[in-house]
Amino acid sequence: MKAAILAVGTELLGTDRLDTNSLKLTAALERHGVELVRKAVVGDDEGEIAGEVGRLVEAFPLVLICGGLGPTADDVTRPAVARALGREIRIDEGLVAWLEERFRSFGMRMAAVNRRQAEVIDGAEVIPNPLGSAPGMRIDAGGATLFLFPGVPSELLGMVASHLEPWLAARSGGRRRESGVLKVAALAESTVEERIAPAYGEFGREAITVLSSPGEIRLQFWATGSDGERRDRLAAIATRLRGLVGPAVFTDDPEATLEQVVGDLLRERGATLATAESCTGGLVAERLTRVAGSSDYFLGGAVTYSNRLKSQLLGVSDELLREHGAVSEAVARAMARGARVAFGSDYAVAITGVAGPGGGGAEKPVGTVHLAVAGPAAAGGGGEAIDHREVHLPGDRQGVRRRSAQLALEMLRRRLLAVVAAAPAPAPGGAAR
Amino acid sequence: MKAAILAVGTELLGTDRLDTNSLKLTAALERHGVELVRKAVVGDDEGEIAGEVGRLVEAFPLVLICGGLGPTADDVTRPAVARALGREIRIDEGLVAWLEERFRSFGMRMAAVNRRQAEVIDGAEVIPNPLGSAPGMRIDAGGATLFLFPGVPSELLGMVASHLEPWLAARSGGRRRESGVLKVAALAESTVEERIAPAYGEFGREAITVLSSPGEIRLQFWATGSDGERRDRLAAIATRLRGLVGPAVFTDDPEATLEQVVGDLLRERGATLATAESCTGGLVAERLTRVAGSSDYFLGGAVTYSNRLKSQLLGVSDELLREHGAVSEAVARAMARGARVAFGSDYAVAITGVAGPGGGGAEKPVGTVHLAVAGPAAAGGGGEAIDHREVHLPGDRQGVRRRSAQLALEMLRRRLLAVVAAAPAPAPGGAAR
Repeated sequence: MKAAILAVGTELLGTDRLDTNSLKLTAALERHGVELVRKAVVGDDEGEIAGEVGRLVEAFPLVLICGGLGPTADDVTRPAVARALGREIRIDEGLVAWLEERFRSFGMRMAAVNRRQAEVIDGAEVIPNPLGSAPGMRIDAGGATLFLFPGVPSELLGMVASHLEPWLAARSGGRRRESGVLKVAALAESTVEERIAPAYGEFGREAITVLSSPGEIRLQFWATGSDGERRDRLAAIATRLRGLVGPAVFTDDPEATLEQVVGDLLRERGATLATAESCTGGLVAERLTRVAGSSDYFLGGAVTYSNRLKSQLLGVSDELLREHGAVSEAVARAMARGARVAFGSDYAVAITGVAGPGGGGAEKPVGTVHLAVAGPAAAGGGGEAIDHREVHLPGDRQGVRRRSAQLALEMLRRRLLAVVAAAPAPAPGGAAR
Repeated sequence: MKAAILAVGTELLGTDRLDTNSLKLTAALERHGVELVRKAVVGDDEGEIAGEVGRLVEAFPLVLICGGLGPTADDVTRPAVARALGREIRIDEGLVAWLEERFRSFGMRMAAVNRRQAEVIDGAEVIPNPLGSAPGMRIDAGGATLFLFPGVPSELLGMVASHLEPWLAARSGGRRRESGVLKVAALAESTVEERIAPAYGEFGREAITVLSSPGEIRLQFWATGSDGERRDRLAAIATRLRGLVGPAVFTDDPEATLEQVVGDLLRERGATLATAESCTGGLVAERLTRVAGSSDYFLGGAVTYSNRLKSQLLGVSDELLREHGAVSEAVARAMARGARVAFGSDYAVAITGVAGPGGGGAEKPVGTVHLAVAGPAAAGGGGEAIDHREVHLPGDRQGVRRRSAQLALEMLRRRLLAVVAAAPAPAPGGAAR
């Protein structure tokens, strides 16, 4: 089946807003194997909307329209669609009663303008909107089916789930399309492409998509068929991709962030963390603390922009700073060690680098970053082990900072993976929480 | 004049990407008083593109098309437009030579496929692309003018500036539309709306737009007419809005951020800054250090998530923490004072609060935040003055954190505004930089 999407709203034709509802509608279409062929945006103009709807129902068996179902004078999707289909509009008294009750439940009287939201196009099935006052509609017209949704994203999403998805499912014969995700940290896109190349041959080029953002790559893969077929095929692709990419895969949860995964590893191990940041200016700490409950394992951090603070807060010696410079392996290691001592944490990550645009030189150009992770030695017995990496990152100031923070979290994740999680019962004398 | 935009690219019909080029094209149209009536996205399908282009040139005097000008088989905008207009395509040998030279200058040989990018539709004016290998075109066809641009945003932007804007300017008779901006920190949208209401009456409802994001409001206002008329009117609206909104306006530079403005104030006063953050987890430090050159005034900060670190790093006494709790006026003040002492800065901002979703109680519900700014007393003589605010912020965890950081920067800005900037010559014995 082929489909088109029409978004209605003059605000979507300005310089500040884009139609993002279509992404949600597209996801629903993709899940059921429907191909989106075009999408368009028109303003709140009855003639424009009617013209576009007329063309779309001629050309497509499925037309999804969102926006313009509100109560005000510029909400004209209802009359425009009626005009395009040559149908009448009537007031549905059941809907009027529902709207009046809705306002009453909020302790308000319904304004007269809201009666417009009870207008129904002849032959339409009303789609209830539990979250707002704009009901939707489904209309069969000749060979085409139209869905009308409100433009408020949360309301639209609910109605897509309650009405569009079941309608699509009934027509796909259970052969849904479904996707899985693997997220990869701190590998170059070209490296990932190279590693997964065999999977393209095995599962088909179009079955796997690589989406890249600074420091993170999302592998999305698709399967069609019955429930069992999809599950088996997604599992097979995921297993193969994990085998090819290796331990850089940090999650198969589409919503999970690297800081959440690191936080879970710390919590499982009953371990605490501190940060010492120079060029990232607090970005690692800020990301860690975005996670609700991060106070379980994150004690705090130091942003030591000046050399004086590196000495004062983290005990990095003046001699070390003079001899090696603030951006150096020795200072990164000393910052990590110092943070661990000063904050009394089990682990500490440290970052010092040249984010630019100024401050670079021939020896340490912009993008030079030293990272260190300090923690207990694997052998136990109170010893300490510090990992170090020197990298040369591309990008502007914010790009270097983002990639650095991502790398630091990934180094910590790899380190924690090598440590066995604590037993479920709290270990006596364990780390202070 | 009325216009339509068509974006070409199958990737723009998926669930991950939106056509953002149209926002740049729309801005250019708005500057010259051209009304955008519709925009559409179609995939890399010659028939679909040709059909849409055919309809658009019938309906609109100006049609802007972007994407599909690359060298590969799925780049079909050139043949599609030629088909829609009933015109031939020829290879422009001058363009071939230019393309070959371009590849040579990168030390590469041009692949045969790239010859396609030298295809020109009969009657088209070629628009050079200094940043890429896809030239654009301008075509007059009957009553309509078409512009073809590549889909790469930086390349498109350059060609909009070099060719579309002059073409529009020549047709607008100098009566351009232009906008000014004022940015407002830490006021509620409803408060701003209430304050600026008189300006709607004086300049027209449509002349002023209010765009709100968490903790920040952007007032955008418009003027049409000759150069002089526009300048005078924008100045009049800006003066009136500043008078109505008051000192919460922090800049009239559309690109300036609050952290840049605060940084400039610190630099002008030869003053240094440190931060002490609990619930914001480093967000204020991270924002301050996004600004290139922030090491001129930002010394560093502490993220003190645990109470122990509040004592250890900032000298907040255990007694104070026990008596008032970590989220309290007393602790916020002590954190600011402690950061100023510990880091040796002229000013310090401190934030402690309940960002949620856990940790709230009846007395201190989620969203309760205490902010403090410590600095030299106005009278001089080495005294200290600490400002404090307690707020109750709406939103989820990240919303509370963003608003808190914004409020802290705004408190600091107000404090610095009350201090006279240093004389251009460095004051003897001034703060260490």
